[in-house]
Amino acid sequence: MSKIPVGILGATGMVGQNYISLLTDHPWFEVKYLAASPRSAGKTYKEAIEGRWHIRRGYDAALDKLIVEDANDVSKALAAKKRGNLNFVFSALEMEKDIILKLEESYAAAGIPVISNASAHRWTPDVPMLIAELNPEHSDIIPLQQKRRGWEKGFIVVKPNCSIQSYMTPVYSLLKAGYEVKRLIVTTMQAVSGAGFPGVPSLDVIDNIVPFIGGEEEKSEKEPLKILGTIEDGLIKNAAGPLISAHCNRVPVIDGHTVTASMEFGENKPSIEQIKEIWRNFRALPQELELPFAPKQPIIVREEANRPQPGKDRDADKGMAVSVGRIRPCPVFDVRFVGLSHNTIRGAAGGGILNAELIKAKGFFGH
Amino acid sequence: MSKIPVGILGATGMVGQNYISLLTDHPWFEVKYLAASPRSAGKTYKEAIEGRWHIRRGYDAALDKLIVEDANDVSKALAAKKRGNLNFVFSALEMEKDIILKLEESYAAAGIPVISNASAHRWTPDVPMLIAELNPEHSDIIPLQQKRRGWEKGFIVVKPNCSIQSYMTPVYSLLKAGYEVKRLIVTTMQAVSGAGFPGVPSLDVIDNIVPFIGGEEEKSEKEPLKILGTIEDGLIKNAAGPLISAHCNRVPVIDGHTVTASMEFGENKPSIEQIKEIWRNFRALPQELELPFAPKQPIIVREEANRPQPGKDRDADKGMAVSVGRIRPCPVFDVRFVGLSHNTIRGAAGGGILNAELIKAKGFFGH
Amino acid sequence: MSKIPVGILGATGMVGQNYISLLTDHPWFEVKYLAASPRSAGKTYKEAIEGRWHIRRGYDAALDKLIVEDANDVSKALAAKKRGNLNFVFSALEMEKDIILKLEESYAAAGIPVISNASAHRWTPDVPMLIAELNPEHSDIIPLQQKRRGWEKGFIVVKPNCSIQSYMTPVYSLLKAGYEVKRLIVTTMQAVSGAGFPGVPSLDVIDNIVPFIGGEEEKSEKEPLKILGTIEDGLIKNAAGPLISAHCNRVPVIDGHTVTASMEFGENKPSIEQIKEIWRNFRALPQELELPFAPKQPIIVREEANRPQPGKDRDADKGMAVSVGRIRPCPVFDVRFVGLSHNTIRGAAGGGILNAELIKAKGFFGH
Amino acid sequence: MSKIPVGILGATGMVGQNYISLLTDHPWFEVKYLAASPRSAGKTYKEAIEGRWHIRRGYDAALDKLIVEDANDVSKALAAKKRGNLNFVFSALEMEKDIILKLEESYAAAGIPVISNASAHRWTPDVPMLIAELNPEHSDIIPLQQKRRGWEKGFIVVKPNCSIQSYMTPVYSLLKAGYEVKRLIVTTMQAVSGAGFPGVPSLDVIDNIVPFIGGEEEKSEKEPLKILGTIEDGLIKNAAGPLISAHCNRVPVIDGHTVTASMEFGENKPSIEQIKEIWRNFRALPQELELPFAPKQPIIVREEANRPQPGKDRDADKGMAVSVGRIRPCPVFDVRFVGLSHNTIRGAAGGGILNAELIKAKGFFGH
Repeated sequence: MSKIPVGILGATGMVGQNYISLLTDHPWFEVKYLAASPRSAGKTYKEAIEGRWHIRRGYDAALDKLIVEDANDVSKALAAKKRGNLNFVFSALEMEKDIILKLEESYAAAGIPVISNASAHRWTPDVPMLIAELNPEHSDIIPLQQKRRGWEKGFIVVKPNCSIQSYMTPVYSLLKAGYEVKRLIVTTMQAVSGAGFPGVPSLDVIDNIVPFIGGEEEKSEKEPLKILGTIEDGLIKNAAGPLISAHCNRVPVIDGHTVTASMEFGENKPSIEQIKEIWRNFRALPQELELPFAPKQPIIVREEANRPQPGKDRDADKGMAVSVGRIRPCPVFDVRFVGLSHNTIRGAAGGGILNAELIKAKGFFGH
Repeated sequence: MSKIPVGILGATGMVGQNYISLLTDHPWFEVKYLAASPRSAGKTYKEAIEGRWHIRRGYDAALDKLIVEDANDVSKALAAKKRGNLNFVFSALEMEKDIILKLEESYAAAGIPVISNASAHRWTPDVPMLIAELNPEHSDIIPLQQKRRGWEKGFIVVKPNCSIQSYMTPVYSLLKAGYEVKRLIVTTMQAVSGAGFPGVPSLDVIDNIVPFIGGEEEKSEKEPLKILGTIEDGLIKNAAGPLISAHCNRVPVIDGHTVTASMEFGENKPSIEQIKEIWRNFRALPQELELPFAPKQPIIVREEANRPQPGKDRDADKGMAVSVGRIRPCPVFDVRFVGLSHNTIRGAAGGGILNAELIKAKGFFGH
Repeated sequence: MSKIPVGILGATGMVGQNYISLLTDHPWFEVKYLAASPRSAGKTYKEAIEGRWHIRRGYDAALDKLIVEDANDVSKALAAKKRGNLNFVFSALEMEKDIILKLEESYAAAGIPVISNASAHRWTPDVPMLIAELNPEHSDIIPLQQKRRGWEKGFIVVKPNCSIQSYMTPVYSLLKAGYEVKRLIVTTMQAVSGAGFPGVPSLDVIDNIVPFIGGEEEKSEKEPLKILGTIEDGLIKNAAGPLISAHCNRVPVIDGHTVTASMEFGENKPSIEQIKEIWRNFRALPQELELPFAPKQPIIVREEANRPQPGKDRDADKGMAVSVGRIRPCPVFDVRFVGLSHNTIRGAAGGGILNAELIKAKGFFGH
Repeated sequence: MSKIPVGILGATGMVGQNYISLLTDHPWFEVKYLAASPRSAGKTYKEAIEGRWHIRRGYDAALDKLIVEDANDVSKALAAKKRGNLNFVFSALEMEKDIILKLEESYAAAGIPVISNASAHRWTPDVPMLIAELNPEHSDIIPLQQKRRGWEKGFIVVKPNCSIQSYMTPVYSLLKAGYEVKRLIVTTMQAVSGAGFPGVPSLDVIDNIVPFIGGEEEKSEKEPLKILGTIEDGLIKNAAGPLISAHCNRVPVIDGHTVTASMEFGENKPSIEQIKEIWRNFRALPQELELPFAPKQPIIVREEANRPQPGKDRDADKGMAVSVGRIRPCPVFDVRFVGLSHNTIRGAAGGGILNAELIKAKGFFGH
């Protein structure tokens, strides 16, 4: 089978670099189209990225010669599509929200599906916000989105913020097992890579932490409700709970968001052992479909007293598994634990790739 | 007025070094007696500390020539007392709990008051565990302790763990203002200096955090109840609340413990503005007595979006003030905030010195 | 004696913040005039600095109400001078070199002496580049500079780059003692504060070092030659040597530049003990004049095996002393050592203040 | 072909962990024997390593059930050899030098070849100290060593210190190309993993560097001379040069030793371009033999202004390639550059594995 040609919008930014790095040797997808700001347009990727490759993994040298196009110019993408060099795009755009909103719609309207990492369309009610193991069924809104907007082949799918994977996969699997999580108080300790490049100045995080990340607490509290929501009349209706309080902090860690979480259950309360059992055994559609980026075991339960740790556990199952540990009673709520997920893989480009694999498997990219 | 001669037990350890550094030019106390393990005994302090000074402040060079005694040998201290070179000791002993328990009692029985930083006697019911602004009245148990144990001039006073200052001073001041704090969920991000030397290996905290500190969560949850307790029949009886859940983490910060806290109030709920007002205006006995180490304003309220931060705020009022910020509604409980205190100053040696000043001011050291 | 009113150009930048912080309670100078970019002009300093105070020390709250002026508008400074609120300015301007060149000349031409931290005029041949202990006699060029340019009261004095203090003070004192240092190979490990704010991205220096700092090696190799130069015909003529090779690196340290240095002497070679003796006893004009910011002992010789270290030694004598250690034979050259100086104090604002004190003491500010 | 069964002496230490991790899925070797201190003997590896796995990669879970033997008891290894479970051992022993000296000899005398990472035998004159690309011919001393000592099948081979790979591979390739490097001044900035676990206390390297590593400078200066030596009368005779001065520093980096180097050539001086050409094209016996751990290109020349960096380049070619950059004229010597190699892979366990592959390919393990 020949690979599906894909494009990266925002190919020179940090998230774009992560997509490019992670898609190296992908069994289904092949990067054939790169677009970025007008400043980079017309350059080879090697020229465009000169002195600006900021992540600690490399990329396929074959991309060095690819000419970078202007991401604002959808006609360039259409031309690539006609040449058979583009089926859909990963959007890693870093622009103002309003511009991204319209630009992603332009691509979709032009027949080019958009698998987006940007936050712009997260609250657009007919755009699904997917974590592939949690709400894969939300992808079924795609034909309704297309119909509603008069788009033939294009559509938009987004993923949530990088801060929520570490606690929402564990919480979701408990909900699915029949245990209502009513209230949740979490404190995140987030890696600097989550802020992009140049991102967090070193003066702010050497021998320091910053107990504030703009907009992050709101996202961490509200995005789960859309993910847990239901499709009604072609729109996604938020779930009513759980009620979440998130304290978000920046810490001197390169990759990996760690979270401490206290959960209050409804009347049906699982035991510590039942929770571990549910987490160890949790599997979902990506695992059934054996999607290439799906972790074999989405939640890894660590029994050591002092794990998970970002340095040691972020790369679990190529950075796609969530690690949990220290599962113990909470003196105030019912149960507390520590969660961890790799923010730029599971929480960003890797999660986006898994979303694209899911959508491919469900046939929405066409044939 | 001539200064009171004081001793340091455990003078070569990290806490001992902090005492020695902070007591430089103290207006009331003068270090005249140093004791440590038999390994250091007989050496000058300069010899004993050679290559082992691990803190980032210096100390009074006059101490270099002082001969270090064996801390296990109380007779050495008694001899110093007879020479007029010792009135009381700061205990910064780093030994097994059982040994410290008995050794501190031996000093007290010999007529030498012990102001301890060690955890051994924290749960001894006739030993007060003091934060000078919170429970100075617990020092009134001293004569009862002496009578009960048949000690004439000696006694033991301890201070609590370094992790609780950042939230308990704010919580206490609200309780005192008539607002019951029923439940509290905190996550601490603690500096490596809290673990002493060699303490936390660098391999564990460069580009990493460790979401576990042995015994720390229990201390953080239970010690506040003794501090808020009352003296009954010569013993301290714990308070019933607040109910606390503490998640304790080690982060790559040299000094300064940061905490995120969510508070649930009883029926009487203060507004955000009332809380800020209470915190800004909080003053206690150490401020009234103008004790040398008392911060002028025990709680500093920061209005910036991203403060307090350990790097910028730990040294507030010479490291003795607690800084708070991000005071805002909590979606799950009532109010949440970020707290910060310097763990080796406010939370250890500085807190111990303030306790000694309080006890001096109350006349318990004799005249 | 009433204090001399001084101004800060670039008062909101990192170097400006350091000046403001260090000048708190200065015995001779009082900050009465603040100027910055047009963006800050017209605001109070408190407003201008809101959320932009990036250094880990505080400043005199009295400045909060001072109105910030536009640094490009020299007439504002002249008006302040007429009101008696400005005698001279510290230039901490962060602009393009050409603009700073002309702007500093405009101030000087208007009769306002400029003590500059900027690099713009370092190679202007009639502008002295001062390290107060090394080439205080270069200040004698000031009347020649004024005559040559037709300036009556104004003049310009600069200081060198922050990277050279750690080795040039030790090297100079040997030269002065009659030992020619012919060749010098140094490797610097420089703190992130040297790059200003936002400066070095945290992604670049957590668990990493960057073996390159733009333009730094050239400055580190050539500026010493001007400092060691002589005044001839009203211009400073560079010294011929020593020949220097500098390898400059950025390391994850907040403050303090460390250097390793190998020295080759001429025929007259001092012993290790002679070198230590020379360094310990080195005193210069600032010490003779007892200038307020002069370290009592400009070079502190450490005998421990593993010192100096930036974390423990940068603040020696309020950050104004250079610490050296590990003085030992070099298998390739003659002698090698480790040097350390605080880059934002000794190497920037503190060095500038000491220069101003020297110039005041020599009477160049007028009376 | 069935794999060769190998053992690890010191299997629970940091170097042993690195061997175990790197040997996962090795095409030639299979770990079948683990030995450590008496404390671990008799436990399964999982039990022995509980809470003590300190490196940031994992290992083959199949080893969890292997029983750890006492490394002091050579008879255990002999029994394993008889069972066909052991051909040779990797020594990662962490004991006193004298004990390692004798213990490694006991294994060799018992017929078990020792590929050692320990420093004990580095200066034993009939023991080769191998960097597989530099002095593979030194392995030819093995039969002479066996004859001299009366050993039939056993022998000892060691590798040099982790600090020298970053500059000696570049220097060696120039020597081999006919350019004498007469003198070399290097400054190393070494990762904390080089000190093992617990190793460097975090208090010593957060916001700090330590300009001293015990014994490291001597090793860095002298070991190259043995590597460049020749076999004469069954002993290795040191080379006369180059003359090296090494300044060794510990920096806050997890993995990867960086070096700055200034080289002085003899009369025949290569140009910058010639040096780059020599380095890019350098290949040696491990590349010819296509050994599994041999990097395809032993020296990677980076052209970017600010590379190599440990965070981005340490893992080049699975951590086995040396990266160099900033190749430029030196104002004092002839040419200077920055070098980098992964200290726990290229500089320790990976280098040891490559040595074993070389010795296997040369037939010294028998058949």
